[in-house]
Amino acid sequence: MVLDYGKQAAWPNGFGAQESPIALHDAQVVANLHLAVTAPYRMQTELDDGTTIKLLGLGQVQIGTKAYDCVQTHFHVPAEHVIDQPAALELHFVHQNAIGQLCVVAVLFTKGAENPLIQQVIDDFAPGTQHAEAIDLSALMPTAGKVYHYLGSLTTPPLTEGVEWYVIQPKHATVSAEQAAWFVHQFGTNNRDLQPRNDRVIQCFDLE
Amino acid sequence: MVLDYGKQAAWPNGFGAQESPIALHDAQVVANLHLAVTAPYRMQTELDDGTTIKLLGLGQVQIGTKAYDCVQTHFHVPAEHVIDQPAALELHFVHQNAIGQLCVVAVLFTKGAENPLIQQVIDDFAPGTQHAEAIDLSALMPTAGKVYHYLGSLTTPPLTEGVEWYVIQPKHATVSAEQAAWFVHQFGTNNRDLQPRNDRVIQCFDLE
Repeated sequence: MVLDYGKQAAWPNGFGAQESPIALHDAQVVANLHLAVTAPYRMQTELDDGTTIKLLGLGQVQIGTKAYDCVQTHFHVPAEHVIDQPAALELHFVHQNAIGQLCVVAVLFTKGAENPLIQQVIDDFAPGTQHAEAIDLSALMPTAGKVYHYLGSLTTPPLTEGVEWYVIQPKHATVSAEQAAWFVHQFGTNNRDLQPRNDRVIQCFDLE
Repeated sequence: MVLDYGKQAAWPNGFGAQESPIALHDAQVVANLHLAVTAPYRMQTELDDGTTIKLLGLGQVQIGTKAYDCVQTHFHVPAEHVIDQPAALELHFVHQNAIGQLCVVAVLFTKGAENPLIQQVIDDFAPGTQHAEAIDLSALMPTAGKVYHYLGSLTTPPLTEGVEWYVIQPKHATVSAEQAAWFVHQFGTNNRDLQPRNDRVIQCFDLE
């Protein structure tokens, strides 16, 4: 059954106090944290999951002293996390570390120039299928920008909490209006509603 | 209502797949991780919570690049986590970091010589009360031993998952048979039953 973004209140398990996405304001500025790609994000499978394009493959990020392996990447249009105003697209690099902790690195894209890597993902997409793919998404992981760090949940069922989020607003990352429109035409809007922040702390630091 | 250790199946929320405690075997040996006390564990309040002695106060541990602040410390007799055979006592240093992630550093004590710091906690205990206390528990945080690292839960309701565990089997840490017996006489046994490990990875490293 395809997830219905028009009936989010009926999604299972969204009852916790630490759900995602949230609006990212009033963040506490902290010292910079080392965040670096330690193995390229080579995607090997592209699939239509009914609500978005999902890409499965390899990749690893090192955050502080912890290494996280990429499980899958996928797209939300419009963006789910909101900083000042909603971004056009949000790319989720979903990771898990050796003991099973989940960590999503989210990248916000504003409207502007066409993004050639995302265009390749669009061009290679075949509705209703799962097929082999060969694309390196490492260049979509920003090397400069602001990082927002907080504790939240998956944004689709089972909406599991305990997920560590690093939401990056890059210095320069754009998709074209046509690319954003392509996703909405294909899947409808697929952004979960903003959730209550409750008493959660958001940390913010510069990516260098 | 006091928690009933004789009716654990009726405790709320213990339905997840990542519950604690577990037996700690077949661990993956990993490189040593930096784990150091960065602010002394100065306890300021001692209280009888009906099932154990709880101490509230300050303290901070740095693990890798993350700092965790102590929320409270308390005791389980016999120990909850099991490595080879059940230990006599398990001390939980419960921490939270800036974004709200929970982390428990557990220390296993075997039967042997009397532990003077734990004896002070026992001597200062006043049943049914919460009172001011002044004791520095930093010396109970081991500086040598084996550390078992895995993703689990609180071991008392609400049994929340997403808790990062560092269970330490120190080189030398003992309590006397009389001290262990004192806890059982006061509270009954207060160790949660071992929970299914499921497919969880346990990491193991040396504390140096």
